[in-house]
Amino acid sequence: MALIVHKYGGTSMGSTERIRSVAQRVAKWVRAGHQLVVVPSAMSGETNRLLGLAKELVPDAAVASTDEARRELDALAATGEQVSVGLLALALQAQGVPAVSYGGWQVPIKTDSAFTKARIESIDDTRVRADLAAGKVVIITGFQGIDSQGNVTTLGRGGSDTSAVAVAAALKADECLIYTDVDGVYTTDPRVVPEARRLSTVSFEEMLEMASLGSKVLQIRSVEFAGKYRVPTRVLSSFTPWDIPLDEEARSGTLITFEEDEKMEQAVVAGIAFNRDEAKISVIGVPDKPGIAYQILGPVADANIDIDVIIQNVSHDGRTDFSFTVHRNDYARTMAVLENTVLPATGAARVIGDAKICKVSIVGIGMRSHVGVASTMFRTLSEEGINIQMITTSEIKTSVVIDEKYMELAVRALHKAFDLDQPSA
Amino acid sequence: MALIVHKYGGTSMGSTERIRSVAQRVAKWVRAGHQLVVVPSAMSGETNRLLGLAKELVPDAAVASTDEARRELDALAATGEQVSVGLLALALQAQGVPAVSYGGWQVPIKTDSAFTKARIESIDDTRVRADLAAGKVVIITGFQGIDSQGNVTTLGRGGSDTSAVAVAAALKADECLIYTDVDGVYTTDPRVVPEARRLSTVSFEEMLEMASLGSKVLQIRSVEFAGKYRVPTRVLSSFTPWDIPLDEEARSGTLITFEEDEKMEQAVVAGIAFNRDEAKISVIGVPDKPGIAYQILGPVADANIDIDVIIQNVSHDGRTDFSFTVHRNDYARTMAVLENTVLPATGAARVIGDAKICKVSIVGIGMRSHVGVASTMFRTLSEEGINIQMITTSEIKTSVVIDEKYMELAVRALHKAFDLDQPSA
Repeated sequence: MALIVHKYGGTSMGSTERIRSVAQRVAKWVRAGHQLVVVPSAMSGETNRLLGLAKELVPDAAVASTDEARRELDALAATGEQVSVGLLALALQAQGVPAVSYGGWQVPIKTDSAFTKARIESIDDTRVRADLAAGKVVIITGFQGIDSQGNVTTLGRGGSDTSAVAVAAALKADECLIYTDVDGVYTTDPRVVPEARRLSTVSFEEMLEMASLGSKVLQIRSVEFAGKYRVPTRVLSSFTPWDIPLDEEARSGTLITFEEDEKMEQAVVAGIAFNRDEAKISVIGVPDKPGIAYQILGPVADANIDIDVIIQNVSHDGRTDFSFTVHRNDYARTMAVLENTVLPATGAARVIGDAKICKVSIVGIGMRSHVGVASTMFRTLSEEGINIQMITTSEIKTSVVIDEKYMELAVRALHKAFDLDQPSA
Repeated sequence: MALIVHKYGGTSMGSTERIRSVAQRVAKWVRAGHQLVVVPSAMSGETNRLLGLAKELVPDAAVASTDEARRELDALAATGEQVSVGLLALALQAQGVPAVSYGGWQVPIKTDSAFTKARIESIDDTRVRADLAAGKVVIITGFQGIDSQGNVTTLGRGGSDTSAVAVAAALKADECLIYTDVDGVYTTDPRVVPEARRLSTVSFEEMLEMASLGSKVLQIRSVEFAGKYRVPTRVLSSFTPWDIPLDEEARSGTLITFEEDEKMEQAVVAGIAFNRDEAKISVIGVPDKPGIAYQILGPVADANIDIDVIIQNVSHDGRTDFSFTVHRNDYARTMAVLENTVLPATGAARVIGDAKICKVSIVGIGMRSHVGVASTMFRTLSEEGINIQMITTSEIKTSVVIDEKYMELAVRALHKAFDLDQPSA
C-alpha cells in the first residue's frame, strides 16, 4: 500500500463527464490498495469566468492595485476549486468510494499574505491523515490557502501543481502524479517543433530550468517544492482511458528524478525552453555607485513584482545601463514604479521598455561537463540572422532574449543543432 | 449614525450591472453617515447551477441520502455566496468605499451540523465590529456558516434572510433592510389577487404566520430571529433606482413591528397566505395507544424532515388515522421512512399520500379578539364548493388544506370576504 497524491488540471475537471472519469481513475487506484489524496484545479474556464466578472466591476488596473482588491480577488477565484473538490467528492461517493473534500483553509494550508501570489508556509496533516486512516479519499483544493489573519489566499496561476507537491511533501507521499493534458515532458514544445521527443525521466534541476523558462508542463514553484522535499513527481496524461492497467499508467509520462544517472550524463542538452510572457526594461544612464542595483530593484520587489533576467552593463563616464525582465502582466506596473519612484531617487536618465521579446534557453545537466555548448547556441542563432539582446547563463542552462518574432525559428534551429530530434543512444 | 444591515436577494445580485447598482445604493447609505453590513445571496441561478452539476454526478436520491453527500453539497452550494461577496466588495471599492468580505466561516457564524438545513448557534461580532470601526463596509455571505468540526454548512433555501437578521441581532443593528424583488408585504400574492394591497406595517406574529404559510417574502426562520431578538426588519424593493432620496427609501416597504398599534387592532385579518409546497400523508389504522404520535413522527424527525400540519382523528375500535403534511421535496423520503420503519413498528394498516394539495390561511392579530372569523372562512369556501381536507388553527391564523386546483379560487374569495381589497380606515 502506497500513499499517492494525484493532481488533475482544469481540462481534466472540465465537465461532469470528465470529473466522473477522474473519479473512476482514482477509484481504480483505491481498489488496488493505495491511499489517495487528490488535488484538483478549477473546472477549465471557471477561474477566467470569475475574474471576468471582477473585471466588469473594476477597471483592469484597479483590480491589482490595492491589497484590499487583491484580497477579494483571491476569495473570489478560490471558489473555483471549492466547486471542483465538492463535485469530485460526490462523484467518488457515487462510485462507492468514501471521500471527503477540504478547502485549503480547512486543512489548513497556511500561506503568507501576498494575495494573488501567496507562498505556502506550512501544511497541517492531522486531519488528512485521520481521514486516510479511516479509509477515505481526501480531496483538497489546489491553488489556495489561508494566511495568519484567516484570509483566503491564492498561489497564482498554476498554483494547483504547487499545492499538490506541497501536500505530497507534507504527507511524505510515495509519489505525486500530475495528470495534465500532455503526456510528459518534451525536448521542446511539439507545437513548435513536431520532432520533439518525450523524456522518460528528467532531472530535477533540468525540470526546474524548463519550468522557469516557460515550459508550461509544471509550475516552477511545484518543481522547487519537489526538489526541496525530494517528492517523486511524475507528469502524465489524464487523457488515457481511466481503465488502462494501473501498472502501465504508473510507468507512463515523465518522472522527475533527483539522482543523475548515466543516461542523463550522455545527453548534453535535455531540451529547449521558451517563453514569451516577459518584457524587457532598461534604466538608462544610472550613476554607477554602490547600492544602485538595490535602489532600482528594491522598489520593484516591494511592489511584489518578480524579476527574471538581470543585466548590468559596464559603465562609461560614471554612468551605466541596467536591464531586467519581468512578467508581461507586470510590465505597466513596473514602468510606473520606475518612473515615479526610481528615476527621481537615483537620478537616472530615463527608462525604456520592450514587451515584444521572448526568451529561449537550452537546458541540460550535461552542459556542466561539456564545453562549447553556449557557443554552439550563439553560432546557430547567428546563422539564422537572429540578434541576441541579452544573455544569461547558469551551470545547466543558457538563455538569450531575442525579438519575439524569431521565437519559433530559434527553437527549431536549436532543437536540430543539439540533435534533440534523434532518439538518445 | 446608525448601524444598518442590508440584505440583497439573488435577483438583486443577478449580474455585474445589478451588483454595481447594489454598491451604489450601499454607498449612498455610507455617505449619509451610516455603518453598513451587507448580506448578499448568490447571483440568481447560481445555486441551481451548482446543484445541477452535482445532480449530473449523483442520482437525485443519493444526493440527499448520506451526511457525507450533504456535507459536499453544502461546501459546493456555499461557493455561490462567496462569489457574490467578493464581487460586491470589489464594486464598493471601485466606488471609493472601503469594503471587506467574509465567508460565514470567517466571521465565524457558527451553526449545528445539520447539512443543507443547519441552524445558526452563535455569531462572533469581534471582527465585524473592528472593521466597522475602521470605516469599512462589511460584506458577509448569506445562507451559510461553519459547524463545530470546521465543516461548511448551509441554512437551506432562503437562508440568506436568516443570516441577515441573525447578523443584525448579533450586532444589535438599528435596522435590518431586506431588499427583494417585491416592494413589501401584501395582503396576499398580487399575482393571484390583483387587488392585493401592500401593508406599511405588519406585526411580527402575523409575519411569522405569513412566512410559515408560504408567503415567499421572507424566510420563516429570519422572522423568528427578528422576533426573538426584536430586530427592526423592513422588507423593501431593490428595484427602485439606487439614487432615490435616502429618507424616502428608508420609509418604503413594509416594517415588521413588535408592538401592536391601534391600526393593527382594527384589521381583523391582515392577509391571506397560501402554499402549494406541501404534501399530505396519512397513516391509516394506527393502534390508538399512548406514544403513537412519537412512534410515527420520531423516525420522520430523525430523518431531518420538517412536519407542518398534524392531525389525529378520533379513534374507532381502538384504531385511529394520523395525518400530517411535509414539504413536497420530502414526500418520497417520508413515505419510505413510514413504509420501511413506522408501519412494521406500529402495526398500522397502511400509508397513503397526496402531493396535489395546497394550504390556504387567513392571518391576523385581530382574530384574537374577534369571533366568527373562522366560520366566515369556512362559509366562503363552502359557497365556492371547495372541500376542506384538514383544518388547523392558532390564535392568529386559521389554515385549511384543500385540493391544489382550488387554490387561486379560494385565495381570491377569501381576500374579498375579509375586505382586504379595501384601503384600511
